[in-house]
Amino acid sequence: MKNALIVGAGAGLSASLARKLHAAGWQVALAARNTVKIEALAGETGASLHVCDSVEPDDVSRLFVTLDTAGEAPSLVIYNPSFRVRGPVATLLPSQVRRALDVCAFGAFLVAQQAAQRMLSAGHGTILFSGASAGVKGFALSAPFAMGKFALRGLAESLARELHPKNIHVCHFVIDGGIASATRVASPGSDQLLDPDAIADSYLHVLSQPRSSWSSEMAVRPWVEKF
Amino acid sequence: MKNALIVGAGAGLSASLARKLHAAGWQVALAARNTVKIEALAGETGASLHVCDSVEPDDVSRLFVTLDTAGEAPSLVIYNPSFRVRGPVATLLPSQVRRALDVCAFGAFLVAQQAAQRMLSAGHGTILFSGASAGVKGFALSAPFAMGKFALRGLAESLARELHPKNIHVCHFVIDGGIASATRVASPGSDQLLDPDAIADSYLHVLSQPRSSWSSEMAVRPWVEKF
Amino acid sequence: MKNALIVGAGAGLSASLARKLHAAGWQVALAARNTVKIEALAGETGASLHVCDSVEPDDVSRLFVTLDTAGEAPSLVIYNPSFRVRGPVATLLPSQVRRALDVCAFGAFLVAQQAAQRMLSAGHGTILFSGASAGVKGFALSAPFAMGKFALRGLAESLARELHPKNIHVCHFVIDGGIASATRVASPGSDQLLDPDAIADSYLHVLSQPRSSWSSEMAVRPWVEKF
Amino acid sequence: MKNALIVGAGAGLSASLARKLHAAGWQVALAARNTVKIEALAGETGASLHVCDSVEPDDVSRLFVTLDTAGEAPSLVIYNPSFRVRGPVATLLPSQVRRALDVCAFGAFLVAQQAAQRMLSAGHGTILFSGASAGVKGFALSAPFAMGKFALRGLAESLARELHPKNIHVCHFVIDGGIASATRVASPGSDQLLDPDAIADSYLHVLSQPRSSWSSEMAVRPWVEKF
Repeated sequence: MKNALIVGAGAGLSASLARKLHAAGWQVALAARNTVKIEALAGETGASLHVCDSVEPDDVSRLFVTLDTAGEAPSLVIYNPSFRVRGPVATLLPSQVRRALDVCAFGAFLVAQQAAQRMLSAGHGTILFSGASAGVKGFALSAPFAMGKFALRGLAESLARELHPKNIHVCHFVIDGGIASATRVASPGSDQLLDPDAIADSYLHVLSQPRSSWSSEMAVRPWVEKF
Repeated sequence: MKNALIVGAGAGLSASLARKLHAAGWQVALAARNTVKIEALAGETGASLHVCDSVEPDDVSRLFVTLDTAGEAPSLVIYNPSFRVRGPVATLLPSQVRRALDVCAFGAFLVAQQAAQRMLSAGHGTILFSGASAGVKGFALSAPFAMGKFALRGLAESLARELHPKNIHVCHFVIDGGIASATRVASPGSDQLLDPDAIADSYLHVLSQPRSSWSSEMAVRPWVEKF
Repeated sequence: MKNALIVGAGAGLSASLARKLHAAGWQVALAARNTVKIEALAGETGASLHVCDSVEPDDVSRLFVTLDTAGEAPSLVIYNPSFRVRGPVATLLPSQVRRALDVCAFGAFLVAQQAAQRMLSAGHGTILFSGASAGVKGFALSAPFAMGKFALRGLAESLARELHPKNIHVCHFVIDGGIASATRVASPGSDQLLDPDAIADSYLHVLSQPRSSWSSEMAVRPWVEKF
Repeated sequence: MKNALIVGAGAGLSASLARKLHAAGWQVALAARNTVKIEALAGETGASLHVCDSVEPDDVSRLFVTLDTAGEAPSLVIYNPSFRVRGPVATLLPSQVRRALDVCAFGAFLVAQQAAQRMLSAGHGTILFSGASAGVKGFALSAPFAMGKFALRGLAESLARELHPKNIHVCHFVIDGGIASATRVASPGSDQLLDPDAIADSYLHVLSQPRSSWSSEMAVRPWVEKF
């Protein structure tokens, strides 16, 4: 059985990923700070649920030990959490800058470290990070998100260079645009918001790449998005 | 019937693309300066063959008129030609620098222009360019290839920004490593050379992306490749 | 009188900057966690000394209030602190990853925020960040430094886009190579290590740019450095 | 005597460079397709004038031989020519795409090759290329300029990697905005157009860098320019 772990599981991209992985024969584990909102998803996809604050080292380490014990050490780990606050630099709260660094990047490190330890033992694995255009271009009035997503990209690049030769595939996705959801809907036929199912298909494509032809970064954006 | 055109068709990536597109139900046209070497491929994939020097405006325009007449105006066009010469800047031949610019970039413009004219009329289409790591990083002792592949990337970026909002998908592939071929084989199991079938799968994935989630650049490299 | 603040003042680049700014008529303030080691430099350059841990919001805010009270609110602020730890991702200490994010990026935000508040009131100013090649390329076995320096670059880009139109110049320096120091000397004549005086000259050049021609990033590296 | 050559000499940036180099003690040679318009500048700066079409190999080689004969082989060479045409990809003239590649990039190669041959013999030298934001980002409706300026950047990167270890400094400037001129004036005090004197100061700064701290790319833009 192939075991996957999705951290930061919510109703959007994570749900699409869980459904597509389940359909492809993966046993999925979903981890989030609050798992109430994803109980239905877990039921639908046969996924296990795990309460975990991804910025807490103990929480993250406990999560992986639990999966170890259940015989479900993941060979695919996806990190989705994000925290964004906007505003002029003069009025931002330092605590929110720290939160952006923690959720976007420090938690990604914690999860990737636990994942890498197991994948190095297993001799293979895949780690996927969900980034944003803010990780490639630092936008005005959005310093905390730029800091967090740039840091995530630095982490992903470093890990790709370290782990690819160890047979562990690392890829950073640049999601450049808004994601459609139940509460955020584009005009019919406009396709102005990223369909989470389409993003998930790109994740699964990268997952399917043989090691002679790995991508370490992939950007997706709506056809009408400025860039 | 879906019509595809592959320019610069040879025995490697182009052959993989032709086979996979044929298997997916596309009618394929293959264009090359010399079509003798791809006759077997054409037979195998039911492709039409077209003699065309992609750096000659008249040749390129004639190619598309021929396809128009046959009712096979392509909704997918792939540009593969490449020309590389290495050496210290002091001893390179200017004629070879011009050839690198012509084959890597000017021909790509000619083909993309003809393709775009038809796709704009049709209201949709996909244009894919085969680039190299030399288009992202200018390596020492390889100025002509750097110039040609950088120019190709500039073309692809400009066209993606112009044509995406017109419902025409443009993507530039960065092939970062050597491609395996009949005459260039990696040690068994080492996967040190890109499998052209794997690259072709990434092209077909990009081709399959719905317009809410388009990639405009995608890099692939072997797991052991330094970057 | 023109007032400058250098945060993270040590014996290398900061000392060169202090001397050159002093020679150019600036009143310099030096801030560091431990000021004992820079007492001689302060004496030499007429600089004021300030104990400040740049990752502590209260320390940073107190530093600027002290300068305000002394009538020395800076129109030039330079952020130099850095923290680097290397190792395989599997064995890094999370506390050190957090420290790299804090020293390289969170402290830079704290200092930039206080600086921006005053410069926005004054209607002008310059903020310079000392980055590294790790902020542009994530090297293997160096994830924490990559995360910290990428985050710094994201901060700098965001602030340049926000503050340039407010007449505040922001520039991020990519120092790509080792810096020569009393304890780290290159072979005579080899120039393999960056001369801190030379780096400081580039900082002063950027400082001198009129606003019609501002740089927001500048990289410097030894002639023999691979890149 | 220090000898400098400016190719593509006109009334804007080239004139500022000629004046500042002359003031700094350089003997300047000015090369252009038409030298009538720069006769006054030559008189003012004591520069020699040379008719040269920089995209013609014979012209370029003859130019350098002339300078050799005069004992003025340059240790500083600056390449400024540019050709830009805008329009939808569907209606661009192929001849203009070729012209953009020729003027922006092929001519730059020809000049750099002759320069490098002499600088390699001399054991030192500086080659500076005038690029544009189009060399970093491919804008819509501007494919030819993107192709030409991307190619120039690829050339510059390749040469920096080859020639820096040979003690020849190569730098590519990204001029990101319009340059003020006699016929193109910004509103007083707005500083919305790049002052060519300010750009020239950045060129001279790079020229002054010791080899322990070389820049290989430098971008300048007006404070109000979007990027």
